Amino acid sequence: MTPSSASRPSLWLNARLASMDPAHPAPYGVLENHALLLRGGNIEAVLPQAGVDPAAFDGDVHDLQGRWITPGFIDCHTHLVYGGSRAAEWEKRLNGVPYQQIAAEGGGIVSTVRATRWLDEEELALESLPRLKALMAEGVTTVEIKSGYGLTQADEIKQLSAARRLQDSLPVEVAATLLAAHAVPPEYAGDADGYIAYVVDSILPLAARAGLAEAVDVFCESVGFTPAQTRRVFEAARAHGLKVKGHVEQLSNLHGAELVAEFGGLSADHIEYLDAAGVAALKAAGTVAVLLPGAFYFLRETQKPPVALLRAAGVPMAVSTDLNPGTSPFASIRLAMNQACVLFGLSPEEALAGVTRHAARALGRGATHGRLAAGCVADLLVWDIDHPAELAYSVGVPQLKQRVFRGSAQNLE
Amino acid sequence: MTPSSASRPSLWLNARLASMDPAHPAPYGVLENHALLLRGGNIEAVLPQAGVDPAAFDGDVHDLQGRWITPGFIDCHTHLVYGGSRAAEWEKRLNGVPYQQIAAEGGGIVSTVRATRWLDEEELALESLPRLKALMAEGVTTVEIKSGYGLTQADEIKQLSAARRLQDSLPVEVAATLLAAHAVPPEYAGDADGYIAYVVDSILPLAARAGLAEAVDVFCESVGFTPAQTRRVFEAARAHGLKVKGHVEQLSNLHGAELVAEFGGLSADHIEYLDAAGVAALKAAGTVAVLLPGAFYFLRETQKPPVALLRAAGVPMAVSTDLNPGTSPFASIRLAMNQACVLFGLSPEEALAGVTRHAARALGRGATHGRLAAGCVADLLVWDIDHPAELAYSVGVPQLKQRVFRGSAQNLE
Ligand SMILES: [Zn+2]
Ligand SMILES: [Zn+2]
Repeated sequence: MTPSSASRPSLWLNARLASMDPAHPAPYGVLENHALLLRGGNIEAVLPQAGVDPAAFDGDVHDLQGRWITPGFIDCHTHLVYGGSRAAEWEKRLNGVPYQQIAAEGGGIVSTVRATRWLDEEELALESLPRLKALMAEGVTTVEIKSGYGLTQADEIKQLSAARRLQDSLPVEVAATLLAAHAVPPEYAGDADGYIAYVVDSILPLAARAGLAEAVDVFCESVGFTPAQTRRVFEAARAHGLKVKGHVEQLSNLHGAELVAEFGGLSADHIEYLDAAGVAALKAAGTVAVLLPGAFYFLRETQKPPVALLRAAGVPMAVSTDLNPGTSPFASIRLAMNQACVLFGLSPEEALAGVTRHAARALGRGATHGRLAAGCVADLLVWDIDHPAELAYSVGVPQLKQRVFRGSAQNLE
Repeated sequence: MTPSSASRPSLWLNARLASMDPAHPAPYGVLENHALLLRGGNIEAVLPQAGVDPAAFDGDVHDLQGRWITPGFIDCHTHLVYGGSRAAEWEKRLNGVPYQQIAAEGGGIVSTVRATRWLDEEELALESLPRLKALMAEGVTTVEIKSGYGLTQADEIKQLSAARRLQDSLPVEVAATLLAAHAVPPEYAGDADGYIAYVVDSILPLAARAGLAEAVDVFCESVGFTPAQTRRVFEAARAHGLKVKGHVEQLSNLHGAELVAEFGGLSADHIEYLDAAGVAALKAAGTVAVLLPGAFYFLRETQKPPVALLRAAGVPMAVSTDLNPGTSPFASIRLAMNQACVLFGLSPEEALAGVTRHAARALGRGATHGRLAAGCVADLLVWDIDHPAELAYSVGVPQLKQRVFRGSAQNLE
């Protein structure tokens, strides 16, 4: 939904703020004895509580009774709009059926493309709704959604339109990304360059003209598109005023991250095989490293992203679900946070920054999202926890008491 | 809650049954075109639908419209009744604080014991309630709950009473297990034998007399209790008419599984270090192997349980959350099922059997729970899925439409 100026002003007292704002003390940018003042869908002020007189305030007053507040969660990398399921195919794989046979039987990404093309825009939104609601129930207030299962002009536009439709029907902000260069569709089998020409000449210009995508993504990989093909897409994105990001260095090092950095990209995602030169390039360009531990886990990968190098270089690390039917069927950002700690060695604070402040930057929203700070959107979460480390520590326990989107609170108990 | 004979008889039509009953074809014991007849809290009959006349039925008729039904989930190994949180301690560990320092600062299991002792029975039940509700929301209808954070007679009885109180307040069946031999409490530091004598002479007899536990468990491990100490506890259990089960072979092979088998135990749990002799002993005794992938994952273990050996020997494998604050803070049986497949290589069908038919056996309920069959309790789940493999495949997506406990349905949409 669009930011609502209709929400009444509100004052939030007696909370403990994990502001995630680097202006305040690490860890978590904790502010005790502060109040939040929300107005017009934004955070108007973060104030020392001593100077606040609730009796004089014309609006709603919430007494948090010592509860923690964090910024709303931002899931900055998802493919949650799709048709069908790949569970039966996964079962075959676990039962020892070789991948070639599964592909020959119509499995793999092609099966999701088929199922996605089969649905109309409304059906596609409807089928994707439970996945988005699951993320929202855990505290997601901004979510990125990629296309990439249509792979024709009409079907990619349909996927982006379904994402728009979801935003319009729910209290959540959607950042849509065109990922037409996700795979070579059957119609272009053996002609990846021909498909890239179609993406660049036909799909991308229409998505940009229609205002349905704010960024363009490419699967730059040995089993995806080459760096040269990726460059062509990024150049077209730049020509149409769209930001870029990339699925890079997931299964091998093609130096896609350096290409993303060269274009001043928002984020380099996956990056298990990123090397020191790639880390330096991200740092120099201000590009965010997006860690996707769900796919790493589901694919039983062993090569981990270079977290120590990224940390030492000061590259912001975001964490996301990568929610998709083939490699990360997990509609839980809490699970992604936990996996980032357990599997990649992030600290709980890094995991929380990864779904707030840094995830905001990965979506070009660093100035307005992901922190409890004056001037940011009033997207915040009220928690029944003793310590913010609990957010990355446990999965499944319902600790979220209120989800506030643009100043409007939704009780979850 | 106790089985309700007050629920009206009901007829469930047009469902696809994943009966999990080995009497029907693998995988999943699928029955198409069958109806379920529930009466008095039990499954009275599973009938070919052709012979059923809903118009002549005096009770509720449910048209499932092709939806899948499975047995209710059984989480056969949890420690969900406890006080406090170990998130801050975990954060320290991730930030590099050595375990010795954390222990010296009062961390580890001792901190959970302290927090659990601090609460009274009602507070303990209240603090544990969200964890149990989270499991129930995913479809758990029977749950095992262990003591083991009291470690005094009064506090162990209090933990078991809190578990009983939870059962009495919610539509769920609780199987309570006395795990007084979980750790040596501070009062007996350096005197494990003395503590075992206290368990055997004082805690166990009272728990048995009060009817608060149906089984006795021991943490048999290098950092827990020796096989000789475990044997003393098992002998006392037998003398008091309680079943036995064991935390065995998690971090090393002390042959605890063979000890469990010698006593005709219900289950041997964890078993990462189980060897062929242990597998044979379980098979001969009819003891269930309980896999706990959450702890394996959270502790970053690398030694996996001998799934191929267990499978070849035909030892039933159950899967459980191990929900506890130190090593498996995951209130999600769907996550445990997924982890069992991804981390241990179970098939989705084995994972589902692991939380139904085999989990029932691990709780001594094989004849009455965990299958859709005449004579079993009417605990069942109605799903919005295309294929039962989806239950182990994804996490977080709300696919459970109805949860039926003892014939009474609860809508979850
Ligand atoms: Zn992706
Ligand atoms: Zn345990």
